[in-house]
Amino acid sequence: MTSSTSDPAVSIPLPDADATNGSAEGRIRVSDRDATRQAHMQSVGQRPGTLQIHPGSLNPRLFLISYDEDFFQEREYFDYDALLAFVRENPERRHWIDVRGYNDLPLMEQIMNDFGLHPLQMEDVLGDYQRAKVEIFDKNRLFMVSRMTDFTSQWEIDDDQLSIFTGPNYVLTFQDDYDDCLEPVRNRIRSGMSHILRYSSLYLAYALTDVVLDHYYPTMAAIGDYVEALEDRIFHGRTDRRMLSRILHIKKDIVRFRRLVYPERDKIAEILRLPDDIVPDDIKVFYKDCYDHAIQAMDLAESYRESVTSLVDLFMSNQSNRMNEVMKVLTIISSIFIPLSFVVGLYGMNFQRENPNGGINYLNMPELYHPLGYPILIGVLLLIVIVQLVYFYRKGWLTNN
Amino acid sequence: MTSSTSDPAVSIPLPDADATNGSAEGRIRVSDRDATRQAHMQSVGQRPGTLQIHPGSLNPRLFLISYDEDFFQEREYFDYDALLAFVRENPERRHWIDVRGYNDLPLMEQIMNDFGLHPLQMEDVLGDYQRAKVEIFDKNRLFMVSRMTDFTSQWEIDDDQLSIFTGPNYVLTFQDDYDDCLEPVRNRIRSGMSHILRYSSLYLAYALTDVVLDHYYPTMAAIGDYVEALEDRIFHGRTDRRMLSRILHIKKDIVRFRRLVYPERDKIAEILRLPDDIVPDDIKVFYKDCYDHAIQAMDLAESYRESVTSLVDLFMSNQSNRMNEVMKVLTIISSIFIPLSFVVGLYGMNFQRENPNGGINYLNMPELYHPLGYPILIGVLLLIVIVQLVYFYRKGWLTNN
Amino acid sequence: MTSSTSDPAVSIPLPDADATNGSAEGRIRVSDRDATRQAHMQSVGQRPGTLQIHPGSLNPRLFLISYDEDFFQEREYFDYDALLAFVRENPERRHWIDVRGYNDLPLMEQIMNDFGLHPLQMEDVLGDYQRAKVEIFDKNRLFMVSRMTDFTSQWEIDDDQLSIFTGPNYVLTFQDDYDDCLEPVRNRIRSGMSHILRYSSLYLAYALTDVVLDHYYPTMAAIGDYVEALEDRIFHGRTDRRMLSRILHIKKDIVRFRRLVYPERDKIAEILRLPDDIVPDDIKVFYKDCYDHAIQAMDLAESYRESVTSLVDLFMSNQSNRMNEVMKVLTIISSIFIPLSFVVGLYGMNFQRENPNGGINYLNMPELYHPLGYPILIGVLLLIVIVQLVYFYRKGWLTNN
Amino acid sequence: MTSSTSDPAVSIPLPDADATNGSAEGRIRVSDRDATRQAHMQSVGQRPGTLQIHPGSLNPRLFLISYDEDFFQEREYFDYDALLAFVRENPERRHWIDVRGYNDLPLMEQIMNDFGLHPLQMEDVLGDYQRAKVEIFDKNRLFMVSRMTDFTSQWEIDDDQLSIFTGPNYVLTFQDDYDDCLEPVRNRIRSGMSHILRYSSLYLAYALTDVVLDHYYPTMAAIGDYVEALEDRIFHGRTDRRMLSRILHIKKDIVRFRRLVYPERDKIAEILRLPDDIVPDDIKVFYKDCYDHAIQAMDLAESYRESVTSLVDLFMSNQSNRMNEVMKVLTIISSIFIPLSFVVGLYGMNFQRENPNGGINYLNMPELYHPLGYPILIGVLLLIVIVQLVYFYRKGWLTNN
Amino acid sequence: MTSSTSDPAVSIPLPDADATNGSAEGRIRVSDRDATRQAHMQSVGQRPGTLQIHPGSLNPRLFLISYDEDFFQEREYFDYDALLAFVRENPERRHWIDVRGYNDLPLMEQIMNDFGLHPLQMEDVLGDYQRAKVEIFDKNRLFMVSRMTDFTSQWEIDDDQLSIFTGPNYVLTFQDDYDDCLEPVRNRIRSGMSHILRYSSLYLAYALTDVVLDHYYPTMAAIGDYVEALEDRIFHGRTDRRMLSRILHIKKDIVRFRRLVYPERDKIAEILRLPDDIVPDDIKVFYKDCYDHAIQAMDLAESYRESVTSLVDLFMSNQSNRMNEVMKVLTIISSIFIPLSFVVGLYGMNFQRENPNGGINYLNMPELYHPLGYPILIGVLLLIVIVQLVYFYRKGWLTNN
Repeated sequence: MTSSTSDPAVSIPLPDADATNGSAEGRIRVSDRDATRQAHMQSVGQRPGTLQIHPGSLNPRLFLISYDEDFFQEREYFDYDALLAFVRENPERRHWIDVRGYNDLPLMEQIMNDFGLHPLQMEDVLGDYQRAKVEIFDKNRLFMVSRMTDFTSQWEIDDDQLSIFTGPNYVLTFQDDYDDCLEPVRNRIRSGMSHILRYSSLYLAYALTDVVLDHYYPTMAAIGDYVEALEDRIFHGRTDRRMLSRILHIKKDIVRFRRLVYPERDKIAEILRLPDDIVPDDIKVFYKDCYDHAIQAMDLAESYRESVTSLVDLFMSNQSNRMNEVMKVLTIISSIFIPLSFVVGLYGMNFQRENPNGGINYLNMPELYHPLGYPILIGVLLLIVIVQLVYFYRKGWLTNN
Repeated sequence: MTSSTSDPAVSIPLPDADATNGSAEGRIRVSDRDATRQAHMQSVGQRPGTLQIHPGSLNPRLFLISYDEDFFQEREYFDYDALLAFVRENPERRHWIDVRGYNDLPLMEQIMNDFGLHPLQMEDVLGDYQRAKVEIFDKNRLFMVSRMTDFTSQWEIDDDQLSIFTGPNYVLTFQDDYDDCLEPVRNRIRSGMSHILRYSSLYLAYALTDVVLDHYYPTMAAIGDYVEALEDRIFHGRTDRRMLSRILHIKKDIVRFRRLVYPERDKIAEILRLPDDIVPDDIKVFYKDCYDHAIQAMDLAESYRESVTSLVDLFMSNQSNRMNEVMKVLTIISSIFIPLSFVVGLYGMNFQRENPNGGINYLNMPELYHPLGYPILIGVLLLIVIVQLVYFYRKGWLTNN
Repeated sequence: MTSSTSDPAVSIPLPDADATNGSAEGRIRVSDRDATRQAHMQSVGQRPGTLQIHPGSLNPRLFLISYDEDFFQEREYFDYDALLAFVRENPERRHWIDVRGYNDLPLMEQIMNDFGLHPLQMEDVLGDYQRAKVEIFDKNRLFMVSRMTDFTSQWEIDDDQLSIFTGPNYVLTFQDDYDDCLEPVRNRIRSGMSHILRYSSLYLAYALTDVVLDHYYPTMAAIGDYVEALEDRIFHGRTDRRMLSRILHIKKDIVRFRRLVYPERDKIAEILRLPDDIVPDDIKVFYKDCYDHAIQAMDLAESYRESVTSLVDLFMSNQSNRMNEVMKVLTIISSIFIPLSFVVGLYGMNFQRENPNGGINYLNMPELYHPLGYPILIGVLLLIVIVQLVYFYRKGWLTNN
Repeated sequence: MTSSTSDPAVSIPLPDADATNGSAEGRIRVSDRDATRQAHMQSVGQRPGTLQIHPGSLNPRLFLISYDEDFFQEREYFDYDALLAFVRENPERRHWIDVRGYNDLPLMEQIMNDFGLHPLQMEDVLGDYQRAKVEIFDKNRLFMVSRMTDFTSQWEIDDDQLSIFTGPNYVLTFQDDYDDCLEPVRNRIRSGMSHILRYSSLYLAYALTDVVLDHYYPTMAAIGDYVEALEDRIFHGRTDRRMLSRILHIKKDIVRFRRLVYPERDKIAEILRLPDDIVPDDIKVFYKDCYDHAIQAMDLAESYRESVTSLVDLFMSNQSNRMNEVMKVLTIISSIFIPLSFVVGLYGMNFQRENPNGGINYLNMPELYHPLGYPILIGVLLLIVIVQLVYFYRKGWLTNN
Repeated sequence: MTSSTSDPAVSIPLPDADATNGSAEGRIRVSDRDATRQAHMQSVGQRPGTLQIHPGSLNPRLFLISYDEDFFQEREYFDYDALLAFVRENPERRHWIDVRGYNDLPLMEQIMNDFGLHPLQMEDVLGDYQRAKVEIFDKNRLFMVSRMTDFTSQWEIDDDQLSIFTGPNYVLTFQDDYDDCLEPVRNRIRSGMSHILRYSSLYLAYALTDVVLDHYYPTMAAIGDYVEALEDRIFHGRTDRRMLSRILHIKKDIVRFRRLVYPERDKIAEILRLPDDIVPDDIKVFYKDCYDHAIQAMDLAESYRESVTSLVDLFMSNQSNRMNEVMKVLTIISSIFIPLSFVVGLYGMNFQRENPNGGINYLNMPELYHPLGYPILIGVLLLIVIVQLVYFYRKGWLTNN
């Protein structure tokens, strides 16, 4: 997950129907292979709590930030045992152990055992498809899952899992990505002036949850820009199939985003309901703020969903408008020329003035013999055209509306 | 926010498809850059409680109304310390400190500290995108957020935040606008006869909440007028793309309005559930009245939403009707003249009466040699036209329905 | 409110698209100026509890029915003080004071003070747009609001407010209409044999609530008749714009009706939950019956809403059918005559048999020189027509379906 | 209510658009005069608890089944007093008194008084439009309402009311139909081996409730068959107006059915929540089974509703398909013959080879004088036709899709 | 139920409109005869708890797996008594008695009596249409129902019932299928290392519930593949009726799947709420994991439902697009050739240059006598064509969009 693509300041290139849209087949799928589906497939019928590494996982990298109000150290460990030793030797300090990448089953099991994590929870961590939730081991230890979102350059919402275990003096996080959206938290610790240094490890967990939640807004902003780009296209009359696919696809993504945020809100609400000896009141104040943000994110998603639904209406109406336009051209040209064709056909008839018997049929198309027959006819034809044009103009069919 | 534009007595000029619609690009957006989105963007990853001034904020102006049952003073202070001193020197009086404009961070922080506001709440105040809510510090102190709405001359709902802090003998309000909809409350205080003078500062907070709620009705009325103007247009057959954009846009706004009012209702319900020692029964009676108003506003919004949904149906049906009309013209003209063209084409054929061998083919188009051939044909053609017109008339295609 | 128009026995004249539909502009509005909106507008920013007379209110008339098991007196008082005196002098009797029309502010204030009504409640009474609700002063005194409905000859649901205050030995009702739907209750009192004479004043309040609820059924019946009339029209193929407006309008009205009944049900449910010393069990039995009726009315409204939604589908399908029909006529006529025109055009060509050089081009249209050329061609043309007619008949395009 | 028509084994004749559909006017109504509406109309403003016989009620017939574990007697009484005497003389036996038909007001009042029924409940019985519900008098006496459904040969859901009063040793049922769906319960009693003989009268009430619930399934099956018949028609391309009316009508009926079952479920849930001394645990087990059945019936109704909604989509798509087909025929024929007509018209022009001045205009239509002019032209015309046919074939317009 | 067809690795053959789709009549039904409906039909009015074998049931086969931490035995018994004897003789071991097939009523009754099952529950087992639920006999004994799903090669969701009874030392399961999805659980027992060997029989019940839930994912994956196959077809412009039938059919199936999972979730939630002495905390941890899975399955189903709804939109838009395309061809060809036909008709008129009186009408179609008349006309015709093509090209009608 790179935060650059989701920067709303970087203008999103308008989706272009001619260009391939990033997928190999050059087309957009309304439904696409769900990561959840894939992830689940491999563990059907497995013993619960069986640890399994998702194929494509990254090799784990271990980062440790240790701090107290006077101390700060940040480094990457290439040896887990050294990290563990440091943590154990400094029980009075607080530690943020950040594991990025899962692709080392024995290491994962060792961490699980060293930190006393439940196999089912470790399964949730590695499965990488868990909804936001909170679980309580005992007074000092919580397990939280957050989902970090991103709007990719393929105009899809990407979401990654951040698993947070809190202990008395440590926070242990897992994610399957080397880049993340947590850098602002690290910077606040590095600055040496953050609340994080003063409050318990639960506050660090809050800060992580909060920064993930805050990151929903750039995602939403990118979606908003994309929806607007689509709307511009539609407003200018684009009605190709690809456009509708795009609208329906982003609609589905917005709905999925909303489904990501709902459990986030419920998770925070559950934290707020925890007894005070687990989550003290002075930390709950901060979670309450989180709660407001989660609701605002849901409101925003709801609002986008409605915009997109309106786009579908606009698209359909455009299609209908196009048909109207096509029909109007047909009708105007046919209505003008078909009667004219009849008239000129009339005078193409071969009724004979001379009777075979020698007489003259004066009633058989005398117009053809009139010296001004042709000019008068041309005048009549022009009159017909003018009358019809006036009629169509009055109906408003000649204006481009 | 100026209350003049929302005055329903001033007739709203009908939206005109030809005129630009007030936005620079001269077009209507179904989805538009959300203020919330913008506001959130700048604080992603910030330490919670970090105060930040929204760009475009106004320079703060400080207004103080001090009163008790015998005393009244109203003035604008250009020096915050003088204001604070006056408030502190008159603890037996009640004070309404009205801060308009946020663009002075040190001043905001000073106010926060002097009045003991929580940084997270101050962040809510300055962020300017908080849903209606109520929070309780302690027995005497509440923090309420209301959203003031307005229907702009661009036919959009504009909403501003009013933040209200109540203390034992003061009410502290924040808003980022010099004009507001609170003037009626000031007039009631000025009149010297209001309940506000007799009840506690909580009653003033109620009066402010109530006047904001009351102001929803002119907003709704303006929306209603606009919806009716749109309906008139549609009823007269307008089917241009811009019309549908407008309908969908106002629909989105109405839904947003409803989402503004829901938390308002919930806020009041929460106040009604507060224990009596925080909100006494004689003040709850007034909040109960507020509650009824909030529900009525929601009902009204719901009713408008339905009207607008009906407009979409009407619009779509109009589009279909137009197509029907176009098709009918095409069908009537084609049906009449194509057969006629065939007949005249028939007598334009060159079948030869004289056999090259000298004989006469009496069966080859004898009509052409009949003395009355042409007049009879004209008669037949007229008959065909009349039969068809009768047929179409019977079908009701000739009437303008 | 006159009960005659809502009598289902009187057949509702079918709405006629040609006739004006009762409104001055001769057209139907999907959204129309809401009374609620109007009513609220004038009191924006007013002190709560400020009494205001709705413009267009009637001049008040005062009616008193006094009764106990042995006594009955019914008269209209033109002097409020006389009425009040009679009520005060007969504390052992029960009194129903019926105030019709609000247009006398001092009188309203006097009644409010004499009967100890709360200004906010009096404001609700005079505002005339309050949802159904119940409020309790103290053990003996309730304030209930019911909404009386009527289906007007303009095919709109009209609703008026009935405000009921109960006291130990009196019931005080307010309504802004001289005619009402309460006559059956008066008749039951007049008959001298009603429960009303035996039970407390709360039973009279019940009887009034019940008769209002019962009156929902004729309203519904009238709506039902109207919906059926619309359906008949649509079934016979009417697709004019006005028809859709009517459908959408009555749909909105039905939804509004449902929103009227919901609070009615909630009001009764709240009464049922009141403690037994306020509403005794033997009276709750009757309210429980009311509750069932309210739910049935909601069911009925729900059912009508669905019927009307179906009508929209039918209407849209009709529009599509009409287009189909128009297209079929065009297609049949074009498909038959355009090929024929080609054929006759073919033999109108001037390919020359005689070569300018003197030779004879035997291949240039020898058909024209065949003695039976013309009759054979006529045969061929007929064959083409017959083949096509058979084809269209098989496709079912010639039948009127 | 006859159970034969709802037998799913009897194949339902497919609805035929040509045949009248059983109603006098030969057309289907989406909304039809509701029995509830009718029933309510006559009692507007009536004293609550006023007994009224619904016009069209049957003359009452009285059936008594008396039994205990050793005794069984079943007969029809033509004299109510004899029945009552027998019941009173046999207090140790259990009795099922089955009243069919209400049309004898004095008898109904006598039964009400003899069995101590509340007038409001008796009103519910005779009104015949009460939703399913349960009410408790005292420990031994319950009042339950069930609704028995049937799918008539008019393809409508018919529902009748079964009112059940339970007493210490009797069950008193009311219904306004001589035939009913309760025969299986009677047979189980007659068989002498049923639980009914061993358990209290509450078990008989359960058995009656259960058999009514079970009877929902044949009703649903008949609806299902009908929906499938409609689907077959639509699948074969039927798009007449009548078809859509039918779909919308059965949709409304299914929704109504669901609304019948919801209160049934709620009724049973309420019985399950009753204290054990009123409904013992060993009987609750059976009601729990009922509860599962009610939920399954609702699921089934929900599933049918969705099928019918899909049918509307199919129908609309069919209409659109038909239009497509019509348009394709028009387009193919026009596209082929209009250009051909142009070509033959071209060579029907009269440009003169001979200059009036005597010269020869060699450029004026030399084709006409070419010896192979006509055969070459025929070849060109054929080529045009072939090219177009290939084009249309490639577009897939010639296949019947 | 065979697990092979639901293996997502096996690519699902794309549904082909030409091929028959597996049903005898060669067509897809949106609504199909519901198994539930069938199953219920035969027991209408039956005594509750009457055991009945569903026609088409398999002959029962009895499998026993007995185990403790040191012992393992798995065999099929052909003699129920021998099985029962073995279970009774080994009370210290745990037993999983797996009954597959119901078609032996006396055997079923014997099992019911031997294991003390309630007749109503046995009825649920044999009825085979029970929603997921849990019921508690007493501390040690639970009755659970799960529904096993499969996506058949007919592209339909098939669901079978798994009934689980737990006892102190046994688990008794019923299913009407010889193949099942429980093999992974058997393998875990066979491996000798499972938790199942260590925990109580309730854990085995959990393992069975969990494996059924896990099996939902392959079913969902198969549905997902099918939806994508449909989407590909639609994206490539397929608009035949059969395609819409398929979409609506799978939509209905997805909704049905969701309705299968909801009760599953509720069942697990109910188990989680059971007191600790019935379901100990260390087993609840596992059920909590199940709960998360159930919610994820519901989310997935919800997501598919939305995809399918989008497909309907795409399909409808495709239909409209096709019509647009047809109309454009018609309009382009007509607009070009109809005016041309008029022009050539014009010069096919027979206005006479020679006056019958001998004079020359110089104004009667002098163009015909111009030496370059014909070439100039051809030029004019070409110009008309070119102008029109440019016009249509500018409108974008010539590109395939």
